[in-house]
Amino acid sequence: MQHILIIGAGKSSTALINYLLDHASEEHWQITIAEKDLELANAKIKGHSQAKAVPFDVFDDDLLFSLVEEHDLVISMLPASLHIHVARKCAELKKHFLTASYLTKEIEALNGQFENAGKIMIMEMGLDPGIDHMSAMKVLNELRDKGCELTGFETFTGGLVAEESVGDNPWKYKFTWNPRNVVLAGQGTCKFIQEGKYKYIPYHKLFRRTEAIYIPDYGYFEGYANRDSLAYLDVYNLRGIKTLYRGTLRRPGYCAAWDVFVQLGATDDTYQMENVSNMTHRQFINSFLSYNPKDSVELKLAHYLNLDLDNGIMFKMKWLGMFDDEPVGLNQGTPAQILEHILKKKWSLNPNDKDMIVMWHKFNFIDNGTPREIQSSMVTLGDDNLNTAMSKTVGLPLAISAKLILQGKINLTGVQVPIRKEIYEPVLEELINTGLIFNEREVAPTFY
Amino acid sequence: MQHILIIGAGKSSTALINYLLDHASEEHWQITIAEKDLELANAKIKGHSQAKAVPFDVFDDDLLFSLVEEHDLVISMLPASLHIHVARKCAELKKHFLTASYLTKEIEALNGQFENAGKIMIMEMGLDPGIDHMSAMKVLNELRDKGCELTGFETFTGGLVAEESVGDNPWKYKFTWNPRNVVLAGQGTCKFIQEGKYKYIPYHKLFRRTEAIYIPDYGYFEGYANRDSLAYLDVYNLRGIKTLYRGTLRRPGYCAAWDVFVQLGATDDTYQMENVSNMTHRQFINSFLSYNPKDSVELKLAHYLNLDLDNGIMFKMKWLGMFDDEPVGLNQGTPAQILEHILKKKWSLNPNDKDMIVMWHKFNFIDNGTPREIQSSMVTLGDDNLNTAMSKTVGLPLAISAKLILQGKINLTGVQVPIRKEIYEPVLEELINTGLIFNEREVAPTFY
Repeated sequence: MQHILIIGAGKSSTALINYLLDHASEEHWQITIAEKDLELANAKIKGHSQAKAVPFDVFDDDLLFSLVEEHDLVISMLPASLHIHVARKCAELKKHFLTASYLTKEIEALNGQFENAGKIMIMEMGLDPGIDHMSAMKVLNELRDKGCELTGFETFTGGLVAEESVGDNPWKYKFTWNPRNVVLAGQGTCKFIQEGKYKYIPYHKLFRRTEAIYIPDYGYFEGYANRDSLAYLDVYNLRGIKTLYRGTLRRPGYCAAWDVFVQLGATDDTYQMENVSNMTHRQFINSFLSYNPKDSVELKLAHYLNLDLDNGIMFKMKWLGMFDDEPVGLNQGTPAQILEHILKKKWSLNPNDKDMIVMWHKFNFIDNGTPREIQSSMVTLGDDNLNTAMSKTVGLPLAISAKLILQGKINLTGVQVPIRKEIYEPVLEELINTGLIFNEREVAPTFY
Repeated sequence: MQHILIIGAGKSSTALINYLLDHASEEHWQITIAEKDLELANAKIKGHSQAKAVPFDVFDDDLLFSLVEEHDLVISMLPASLHIHVARKCAELKKHFLTASYLTKEIEALNGQFENAGKIMIMEMGLDPGIDHMSAMKVLNELRDKGCELTGFETFTGGLVAEESVGDNPWKYKFTWNPRNVVLAGQGTCKFIQEGKYKYIPYHKLFRRTEAIYIPDYGYFEGYANRDSLAYLDVYNLRGIKTLYRGTLRRPGYCAAWDVFVQLGATDDTYQMENVSNMTHRQFINSFLSYNPKDSVELKLAHYLNLDLDNGIMFKMKWLGMFDDEPVGLNQGTPAQILEHILKKKWSLNPNDKDMIVMWHKFNFIDNGTPREIQSSMVTLGDDNLNTAMSKTVGLPLAISAKLILQGKINLTGVQVPIRKEIYEPVLEELINTGLIFNEREVAPTFY
């Protein structure tokens, strides 16, 4: 019997828990779910004989110690900032440890301890980061192995609502993941390199510098740049490449409309607004517009941002209720917090809504003197608002890598992210069986 | 004999030193100028028998101790962050201390020590902050004393180049003060209150939300908002006022053109650019534009910002040489540092150029049920690029308050800013003799 500890049974753990339960009998696993909300944990276990739920508190050091000690492998679904507590216990007690969160310097510092223990810690083993690394490195390394010169790599990921669940929503978007991150997305300066030229986009222009991206069978999406693509020159070992661009996917029309909030300053998270308890949606918008009491908020907004009154963007604002006299419903908040609160009223998933994950890569390379381009894409739909595409794409890489480690098929030690062949090859192969499949196609490369 | 110590003999000290030298004989002062550059200090003393220059290093604690100990009153023209070292010595040795810089919490903490010593420290005794406080508080308190209800206060200041020194410069602007502050001006969120409504302007909209301001004999200027006007609700004791707005003055057309740099992201000071040592002006601009090697930088810029090619803004950019293949001439830098470096090539004062200070206040109040409005303005020209308007307006309030303290006409103690009658009344009266005069006029109040 091998013992697996999963910490956290929230929304994003569903597919992870299901996969491990499904394989528990065959693999001889005993699974423990540590979770504050025992009812939630038991609902996910569904009476499985090889699984149990136990109460959890990350700040109860004795509890954490005894729990980690009793297991062979630990998967943390805690908020990113809390992983370090669990990671240190795993290092001390010599246990494997997996998360879907970004590697931090604090966690990287545990590398020596894990190596000496002969155990592996894998960070960034979810969707983005996770599947993006693995699916990119697979193609990049194949091209390198064939002796091709890599000239460009672009990669975009989007967490969206499935087409069938869009309904009358003109944004064709709902929150399928952390709403706060969606509201704050892109703040700071975007940096990337294109055809050997370094390019910089300030936040207030980001949502007007989109790219149209075509995905076979699904049509066009639009992509905007993520903050610092240049950091990936080293992560993916791509120094010298002419183009490197990472971004986020939305449905066409989203970015130009979202830009209204950016232009107003409504995504600012740096100061508390005044008089929030008495504020309506309409007053929230008006607080960013000039004082002209005889003009309507609608006209002031349209004029400020140079929009026709019948522009679809104005309708998107109206559909959200941004011009309504409805109270915001908060007692205090930054503009970003207030905007998030208003958006949740319309952008929350209904019980039957399905979400959708879209990932797309573009590889440019020179093969024996000939410029070539390969595009690779993965689209996954959720089953419902519990078995979401997000939960599958985050949870299955964790579940599969846990299985491969316990089976002895991943033998690396130390702190890792999934950019090494020994990890991504077997994980990607198994992901195919769960329906997470990348389709590759060759297209004619773009020339300027 | 009374002893005055001036620390720093740079550009902004000229008028301060001249005023004190002019009154030294009559007032029985012995003046010491402490300055790293003794040649510079001696040039300003011009052989005056009651003045001497001594070498200075703010980090030489023994030197600072003995210098402060030998004097009755100390004026620091050091960079703002260094005042605290001198202030602590003055508190310890019981000496008066004056600066033109903003009051900080660190310095405020010395209040008890100065009070116990029976000495005064006055901060913010220059132009802005300084003359703005004094001239505003004078009118605000007069109106309050007459029983009027204050409903609005707006105040704008600008450091500009005199009309006669504009020449062919289409910006009608040159650097007359710290260029770095001009490049970074307005970053963050502007907050103010207008007719009882809180209003917020994000940085990327600030230079498109200007107001036209008319000053008799000088014509129109344009004003943009300073960062946090709300902080002045307490400074000026204006809680409950319906409108409070502080801003900066430029000549018409400046702000819309400056907005090009803001929109591009060229004023960003948060990251280092790549390949700066090989960068030309043209490449600097191009790094913020899309990659389209067949299109000119001019056309890409005009299209990006929706400008006609013959728009005056495009000419302002061309006049600055922003499209030239001239090397920037730096080895590294943030966008803001690089932009400052390029601008200095065209925006530095020539030896015969005159600068100009413009300050404007607008007071709205209800007098016995009748809404009234008073506008007050001060315009000062420099004599040349040594006796600048900036040096007069910063230095003369310091010099005059030093005289009044040593004459026993200002008797307050502790840490002060010039918002109390005991300070601003005698200082403003003396300023009139130096030509720094506010003209008041009543106009018909604006209604919405």
